[in-house]
Amino acid sequence: MTTPGSCPATTAATHPPVCDAGAASGSQKLVRPRLVLFGDSITEQSFRPGGWGAALSDTYSRKADVVARGYGGYNTRWALFLIHHIFPLDGLAPPLATTIFFGANDAALLGRTSERQHVPVSEYKNNLKTIVNHLKDCSNSMVIVLITPPPVDEEGRERFARSLYGQDARKLPERTNEMAGVYAGYCVELAREMHIPCINIWSKMQETEGWQKLYLSDGLHLTPEGNAVVHKEVVETLRNAGLKAEHMPYDFPHHSKIDGSCPEKAFQ
Amino acid sequence: MTTPGSCPATTAATHPPVCDAGAASGSQKLVRPRLVLFGDSITEQSFRPGGWGAALSDTYSRKADVVARGYGGYNTRWALFLIHHIFPLDGLAPPLATTIFFGANDAALLGRTSERQHVPVSEYKNNLKTIVNHLKDCSNSMVIVLITPPPVDEEGRERFARSLYGQDARKLPERTNEMAGVYAGYCVELAREMHIPCINIWSKMQETEGWQKLYLSDGLHLTPEGNAVVHKEVVETLRNAGLKAEHMPYDFPHHSKIDGSCPEKAFQ
Repeated sequence: MTTPGSCPATTAATHPPVCDAGAASGSQKLVRPRLVLFGDSITEQSFRPGGWGAALSDTYSRKADVVARGYGGYNTRWALFLIHHIFPLDGLAPPLATTIFFGANDAALLGRTSERQHVPVSEYKNNLKTIVNHLKDCSNSMVIVLITPPPVDEEGRERFARSLYGQDARKLPERTNEMAGVYAGYCVELAREMHIPCINIWSKMQETEGWQKLYLSDGLHLTPEGNAVVHKEVVETLRNAGLKAEHMPYDFPHHSKIDGSCPEKAFQ
Repeated sequence: MTTPGSCPATTAATHPPVCDAGAASGSQKLVRPRLVLFGDSITEQSFRPGGWGAALSDTYSRKADVVARGYGGYNTRWALFLIHHIFPLDGLAPPLATTIFFGANDAALLGRTSERQHVPVSEYKNNLKTIVNHLKDCSNSMVIVLITPPPVDEEGRERFARSLYGQDARKLPERTNEMAGVYAGYCVELAREMHIPCINIWSKMQETEGWQKLYLSDGLHLTPEGNAVVHKEVVETLRNAGLKAEHMPYDFPHHSKIDGSCPEKAFQ
């Protein structure tokens, strides 16, 4: 049996030492870095079963906290009202990385059911630019990842509308894949101009045969398989930006490093 | 089409107003409350597919952040070294609620493979008490929930050991269900003495026929079904303590409350 007090260096540690945040040891930082997921419903729902946010939490387990800041129904115009709250300029610990995943609502068509959410594509690009610049002002080392809106399966949207409104469902889709693609293009263009990484999920998903039903549950939101694609792309993008989970320190010692008869040592 | 600037009250909001944290509106607080999950590997793994941490994140989506502080292999003795870091006494926003889920490692038997992790049951109870008292010192309104160690399926543990060590696996189990039950009893007793809620997951899981394979993947860690039991019990306990997700405010307005032609109003 291992008992406290048997450690030659110190006595029993009923009152463990308090280290400062960011102490020299490196492994005992008070504040674990954060990865923030900023976006619309596709981000808000990312902790549902099979969700890409939950999967990312697991990928960065004990390395970083994954924080969802997803707001269903929001477009980039409304997102601008949130950025100073979610990403305060005087925040003591700005996120290590942030994903920006808007556009699905901005691309809703004028004159259709969801026109309230529509934002013209040039404004969408400009709003994204404002968000990115704000994040750069928060921290010049933050990894900022843009994600385009996903593709739209118009048939899936129509079926979804009928399930909600029956015969009253409008015949014309409130979103089209073509229009989502236009927004995706502007997003990719902005990322190139600002020299930041971008995941063109609109394009990526359409590389797979049957993406419409495989990746989208209602023509717009993600199935577990669709979530897995986003997760894979985000992990790869973060890795390319230097955030490899396996190279990041544990926030406290791995249990195998703790000497049962002298646990204090591992925490000094 | 709805354009910014068409709002009668204000002009286009290219620079959205910055509200103070906790502004009178109530819905625009800078800091979303946190639910912290403190424990061992069963907490660390709670964001794996089907995990109870991820499910809790989804339950409290846009209401509270669920933060995993799970440390695989840790017992309560080693957990004491972490509490001042994870729960600083001068923390500006202590968690709204914390679950404390230790004991599976404390209950590892002396003289067996995992004896390094063993903590005598009276010390286990005392360590839990120290953790609870520390949390009370952090915040006298924090909801503190104790969770007992889960039951142990000795056959499952043996199979797991054989899968790791083959013929070299020890014949005697490193954990027994009986001993886990002793630790569970002490945990329940402490909760009663300290007047805080406790989830006796050791007992709860054994109410279901076939719990050994249904709820445990390797005789100790949880299957998705086991995770679902923990999730259900935690949600129910938090609800009974007044933290009903549906009564908690959204951190920002629901999109349906935003007037497309005058979005500023919703954010004032």
